Amino acid sequence: MNTLPIDDIMHAIGVQARRASARMATASTSEKALALQTLADLLRQQAPALQAENAKDVERARTGGLAEPMVDRLKLTAKVLETAAQGCEQLAKMPDIIGEIIGLRQQPSGIRVGQMRVPIGVFGMIYESRPNVTIEAASLAIKSGNAAILRGGSEAIESNKALAALVRQALAAAGLPEDGVQLVPTTDREAVGRLIAMPEYVDVIIPRGGRGLIERISAGAKVPVIKHLDGICHTYVDDPCDIAMAVTIADNAKTQKYSPCNATETLLVARGVSEAFLPEIAAIYAAKGVQMRVTPEGRPLVSRVDGAEVQDATEEDWRTEYLAPIISIKIVEGLDEAIAHINTYGSHHTDAIVTNDHRHAQRFLREVDSASVMVNASTRFADGFEYGLGAEIGISTDKFHARGPVGVEGLTSLKYVVLGDGEIRR
Amino acid sequence: MNTLPIDDIMHAIGVQARRASARMATASTSEKALALQTLADLLRQQAPALQAENAKDVERARTGGLAEPMVDRLKLTAKVLETAAQGCEQLAKMPDIIGEIIGLRQQPSGIRVGQMRVPIGVFGMIYESRPNVTIEAASLAIKSGNAAILRGGSEAIESNKALAALVRQALAAAGLPEDGVQLVPTTDREAVGRLIAMPEYVDVIIPRGGRGLIERISAGAKVPVIKHLDGICHTYVDDPCDIAMAVTIADNAKTQKYSPCNATETLLVARGVSEAFLPEIAAIYAAKGVQMRVTPEGRPLVSRVDGAEVQDATEEDWRTEYLAPIISIKIVEGLDEAIAHINTYGSHHTDAIVTNDHRHAQRFLREVDSASVMVNASTRFADGFEYGLGAEIGISTDKFHARGPVGVEGLTSLKYVVLGDGEIRR
Repeated sequence: MNTLPIDDIMHAIGVQARRASARMATASTSEKALALQTLADLLRQQAPALQAENAKDVERARTGGLAEPMVDRLKLTAKVLETAAQGCEQLAKMPDIIGEIIGLRQQPSGIRVGQMRVPIGVFGMIYESRPNVTIEAASLAIKSGNAAILRGGSEAIESNKALAALVRQALAAAGLPEDGVQLVPTTDREAVGRLIAMPEYVDVIIPRGGRGLIERISAGAKVPVIKHLDGICHTYVDDPCDIAMAVTIADNAKTQKYSPCNATETLLVARGVSEAFLPEIAAIYAAKGVQMRVTPEGRPLVSRVDGAEVQDATEEDWRTEYLAPIISIKIVEGLDEAIAHINTYGSHHTDAIVTNDHRHAQRFLREVDSASVMVNASTRFADGFEYGLGAEIGISTDKFHARGPVGVEGLTSLKYVVLGDGEIRR
Repeated sequence: MNTLPIDDIMHAIGVQARRASARMATASTSEKALALQTLADLLRQQAPALQAENAKDVERARTGGLAEPMVDRLKLTAKVLETAAQGCEQLAKMPDIIGEIIGLRQQPSGIRVGQMRVPIGVFGMIYESRPNVTIEAASLAIKSGNAAILRGGSEAIESNKALAALVRQALAAAGLPEDGVQLVPTTDREAVGRLIAMPEYVDVIIPRGGRGLIERISAGAKVPVIKHLDGICHTYVDDPCDIAMAVTIADNAKTQKYSPCNATETLLVARGVSEAFLPEIAAIYAAKGVQMRVTPEGRPLVSRVDGAEVQDATEEDWRTEYLAPIISIKIVEGLDEAIAHINTYGSHHTDAIVTNDHRHAQRFLREVDSASVMVNASTRFADGFEYGLGAEIGISTDKFHARGPVGVEGLTSLKYVVLGDGEIRR
């Protein structure tokens, strides 16, 4: 099939994406809703056919010796497909932010100046294993009026091709260009190198995967990259605070799920509440098998708990994203030390304070330099759905352009609109 | 003086900037106003001393054989200094957007989620000749709560050092860190190479100068660059339109000043109004000595005007930013062809339509892919002051992050704030 050199394939995809992007940008709200609803319908109707293609990937992965948890992530189960269909339907119903004009105000010259929200143009998405990301990315492209070029993992290629075919069908049914969302049809690694170096066709790259993938892409990209590196998130238990609330939040932030990037990895505890707080939370962590790596001052408060697995914390612990039942714990003097620790060792992802002090809360919000800063809530809330974005294409730890969970808005830009009545510059 | 290797100098500047940025970010509105007002006062009080330093640069430039218009741009005249002082005072009085929280809304989980506007952190500014840019950049840094590292042209080094010393004095007077705004003290070119490759200390680079400078910096930068490349701006005279208004706007857009990036370089004229419009505008251009480069269909309409200097337009003309008394003119079928021409040949800077047709106006605003799109106004309005931004650090032709004139807001980012009352993720 793909006998063309990679350069020619990627060039053709780029030209088609750029051409399709003009039409995608002017798609009406109802055209986009029709495409999304059709896609949802197709995902349900074609579930057996999709699963047949998916079975090929799963079979190949097993034969190839992929670990079973990884094989699981590949599977297009009935539940995965239904969730994807519902995601499309939810997006279809969300307000359309494309074309909205904000801040239109008259200037002394008489012109009225505002900003209109428009699609970025073409985004490239690079991801691994889970084939349902194909639908998430395609539906966000449709809703945001962008064209997209998708590069999924080689292990999911048959599933992705089958899903991408449905996306084309849905676009066509709504009168939108089939090339509005294209899947790179080859698993050749060179294709990624080309995709990230075509500024004439691609406006932004969104990689989703491990740190290695993201660093490789950032280093080689000739276009902006919406990056998500580590999630070294902190929960700071302030003095004064509601101890019961602090225990509930510190428990949830660490143990509700260990693998997400927004799970808390370091617990900072104000000295004044450490005696009341630490034994309580340590009992919960001990019961759940969470290993605690603690500074010397905190050890006695934690070690006295039955079954607690305790180690000394090292400098390295403050820089580590465990994604596992491990937490580092440090007793701090108070707010200043907590903020300094977070800004020094954190990854600018998500950090929370549990406090009863209004001024402490305000200072924490203002001074902690992270994409999400929280008061009296679990860091696990840092998520596009929980934030009401309707969908999430990634979480950005950059400060430039999109910061934090990236939904439809992160795939848009604001251009200036000027409405005059014959005004000229004096 | 500067006997340290460049690497050491730039490293030290970077460390100091990053350290100062934390305090700059939390500066209160009144502290920032005090710094800006003090700077304005110092510019007036110290005018003689500044001009003495400036005279050294001017003398050296003349001796070195710099062309007189370039020497003029170097001069810190009384008027230049007064304008700079007034700019600081205006910024001081503008509302402070740092810390504002937008869109705070409660989510189904109970948490309230919004976005807080915060400074980017540290910006690096690279510019040529005009020393008053030092004050523009410093005052924007103060107002936006960022730290800044400034690298002016070597021809203005004495002037820039004197101005930067006043900035330090003003910062100190307001209780802000003197290192909030630093001038690179060496004219060594290597310093630029280092400045653009310190992502640990610098968050964004803003180059101001010719295309060569900007392309060199973009190619070498390891941090985002707010780029301003060409300004190939169009005015499209639609059918139907008010011919008198079209003539006034097309005249102003081209001739009010020839050198700015927002001057119109190509005039597109709908066939239906070409006979009424072209001879009228051609008479004005002929009287002002503007050369017209016209497609064959339009030549007879233009050439019949007394004194008109007319040439055939070539493909190359559509891609050329003249910045001179030259304009290219093309007759088009109508709106579709005009939009296609602009999106193909333009530089996504600023484009205007003159029309009486509401649907045409709406389509032009939506479909022209430029940083500023205008209806019935002169392209010369694309400017931070005219847009009410209060100040302008540059104009971005990128789509990512800042687009169009960049003022205080372009030097900020939005982080998510989450206010809870003990909510946890289920």
